[in-house]
Amino acid sequence: MNLEIITIGNELLIGQVVDTNSAWMGQQLNKEGFDIVRITSVQDTVDAIKASLDEALSRVDIVLMTGGLGPTKDDITKQTLADYFDSKLVFNQDVYDNVCTLLKGRVKNINELNRGQALVPDKCTVINNPVGTAPVMWFEKDGKVVVSMPGVPGEMKHAVNNEIIPRLKERYETQHIIHKTVLIFNIPEAVLAEQLSSWEETIPGYISLAYLPSPGKIRLRLTAKTLDDSKAHKDIENLVKSLYPIVGDNIFAEEDKPVHQLLGEMLKKEGKTIATAESCTGGYIGHLLTSIPGSSVYFRGGIIAYENEIKERLLGVCKNDLLKYGAVSQPVVEQMALGAKKVLGTDYSIATSGIAGPDGGSEEKPVGTVWIAIAGDFGVISQKYQFGKMRERNIHRSADTGMVMLFQQLTNSLR
Amino acid sequence: MNLEIITIGNELLIGQVVDTNSAWMGQQLNKEGFDIVRITSVQDTVDAIKASLDEALSRVDIVLMTGGLGPTKDDITKQTLADYFDSKLVFNQDVYDNVCTLLKGRVKNINELNRGQALVPDKCTVINNPVGTAPVMWFEKDGKVVVSMPGVPGEMKHAVNNEIIPRLKERYETQHIIHKTVLIFNIPEAVLAEQLSSWEETIPGYISLAYLPSPGKIRLRLTAKTLDDSKAHKDIENLVKSLYPIVGDNIFAEEDKPVHQLLGEMLKKEGKTIATAESCTGGYIGHLLTSIPGSSVYFRGGIIAYENEIKERLLGVCKNDLLKYGAVSQPVVEQMALGAKKVLGTDYSIATSGIAGPDGGSEEKPVGTVWIAIAGDFGVISQKYQFGKMRERNIHRSADTGMVMLFQQLTNSLR
Repeated sequence: MNLEIITIGNELLIGQVVDTNSAWMGQQLNKEGFDIVRITSVQDTVDAIKASLDEALSRVDIVLMTGGLGPTKDDITKQTLADYFDSKLVFNQDVYDNVCTLLKGRVKNINELNRGQALVPDKCTVINNPVGTAPVMWFEKDGKVVVSMPGVPGEMKHAVNNEIIPRLKERYETQHIIHKTVLIFNIPEAVLAEQLSSWEETIPGYISLAYLPSPGKIRLRLTAKTLDDSKAHKDIENLVKSLYPIVGDNIFAEEDKPVHQLLGEMLKKEGKTIATAESCTGGYIGHLLTSIPGSSVYFRGGIIAYENEIKERLLGVCKNDLLKYGAVSQPVVEQMALGAKKVLGTDYSIATSGIAGPDGGSEEKPVGTVWIAIAGDFGVISQKYQFGKMRERNIHRSADTGMVMLFQQLTNSLR
Repeated sequence: MNLEIITIGNELLIGQVVDTNSAWMGQQLNKEGFDIVRITSVQDTVDAIKASLDEALSRVDIVLMTGGLGPTKDDITKQTLADYFDSKLVFNQDVYDNVCTLLKGRVKNINELNRGQALVPDKCTVINNPVGTAPVMWFEKDGKVVVSMPGVPGEMKHAVNNEIIPRLKERYETQHIIHKTVLIFNIPEAVLAEQLSSWEETIPGYISLAYLPSPGKIRLRLTAKTLDDSKAHKDIENLVKSLYPIVGDNIFAEEDKPVHQLLGEMLKKEGKTIATAESCTGGYIGHLLTSIPGSSVYFRGGIIAYENEIKERLLGVCKNDLLKYGAVSQPVVEQMALGAKKVLGTDYSIATSGIAGPDGGSEEKPVGTVWIAIAGDFGVISQKYQFGKMRERNIHRSADTGMVMLFQQLTNSLR
């Protein structure tokens, strides 16, 4: 079942806001067997909204829209949809009650703009939005469905999960879509593709392959559209198995989860704890680890040692080594890892020290030079990397690589 | 001058990758006077790519495309564009040399797939891509321009900044677009809009207003399209000035920059230093502060004290207070802030302790309860917040709010 997404808002087109709604919807709907065939972002104008809707409805039966439903004058989606569906705006008591409940305690009086949110087109099904003041609207015409949702991600997600997907599944038959993603590290895309060229020939026609490269990592995705789940699962399983003799050393996981989640799940399962000692990553490893609910079971804490004196005083790095080798060096990063493990009292630790850039590089240690160490019952292991010139990318790769180093070490020791 | 963006890749439509390229391009091009009127994301199929190109070219004169230029079989953009422009693929020595330079030391031999990247349509201008192996291609037909760039953000950004914008500016006359964004905190959108209703009436017709709400914050954006810069700047300046008597207490800044950047710039200017003591934010404040180049001038480091024992031992929080009031309490967060300032030897500090969720809440302290403290020459100031149920949002709002608290305190004390 094909569908399209339309996101509305000038802020998307001038780049003041990144459209994360579409990707999230794509993920959720795809899992449920719906194919998103196009995503369109348009300006807050009557013409742009109507034209994009005309075009989408000429191609598919389901259109999901987000944005432009706020109480202010620049938001015109509701009025535009009312016109589009030959409908007029009428007062809806349920929506009004919801607005009142949500604003209780936050504002003195419900004002005209808030009251205006309770006006809805008379030719749509209004769907309850308990997490926001804008209504969710479900239109039907000539057997096709158009749903308009608020652009605020939390409100859109609540509507999609609790209302839209259940209603769509009740109405439409869907094919099964099975994805399997293998994470592969430290191999350039073209090299990997060459090594896999014979393997690619063995992929059955109903399964498609995609390479999704990002810095240091390639996600290899197999997708089957099928009515026979068990055959597809089996075929995919065999394909993945046959990857190991070819590139097994570079395979990191068979799940499309970020490394901080995989590492966290492993630590939780083994009942182990972890600490961080972060210089160039500045707290990013701590942030990623704690972005996962329940991480307090394995993450005890960390020391962000940006300044050398902090490395010395809080992590016990030897002052002479700092002077002799510099902060971005093997002795220092190893002492940082051992220090964090000891000071924070954990089973494992990850430490980073590098030159994220854009300044601070030298001929000997150019921007992108990063030392990473992990410590644990296996002792301390460290490795030097040369990432590149871009600060954000260096921070991300340093964090990911530190966690990959520990994850692989633990995977090997548990084998 | 209107243009459209087309981003290509199944990964965008199934949500495995968020399209951040479009927003970035929108920002850069808009600054240069180009209006992005539509963004379209399509699948890696010949039909989808050609159809989206037909449609875009029926509306505008410039189309920028990203994605689908990798060396693997699932990437078909180059061949599709060659067909579309009645062109054939020919070997290009410059592109080949660039591929060799980039892969030197990373691979043993240049393989067939890499060699294939040097095949380019004969009816396009090939633009050098010194940061990646895929070529950038500039097509012209019937006076219209289509540019195809790699989807890897670093490569696309390099091409847009160094090649595409200069070439477009040379070719097209552009209107001036002036944006001014005012950041407003802690006021619901509808309340703000009501308070500003008379003010809105005073906005000249050639200036448009938009409300961009996000949790806890509203960005108020004024946009002028003009040929008379000085008049527009003056009109906008007066409009912003006249905001202060109405909502001055809630205005946080007149620049569309994230708070960590504004805070960092202020600390740098004043020659002051900062440290963090993070519990519920888990390193996110440290990460945000250090995401800015040159932050080592003011950021010395932080302690991520996820576990209570770490709060006690490393930050000097009193054990009795932890037992008596709990970790999420005023005495504890104030001691964390004072401890971080002392232990890390800085002028200022920010501390957070809260229940990010989804678990860990109680009737007295539900999920979303967060205590935040700032410390400095003004002593210690703390505040309790009730953010909501969503973990990610709670972490982001806690980090932002802590930095806003310090920024406002410093702004006031410097007045």
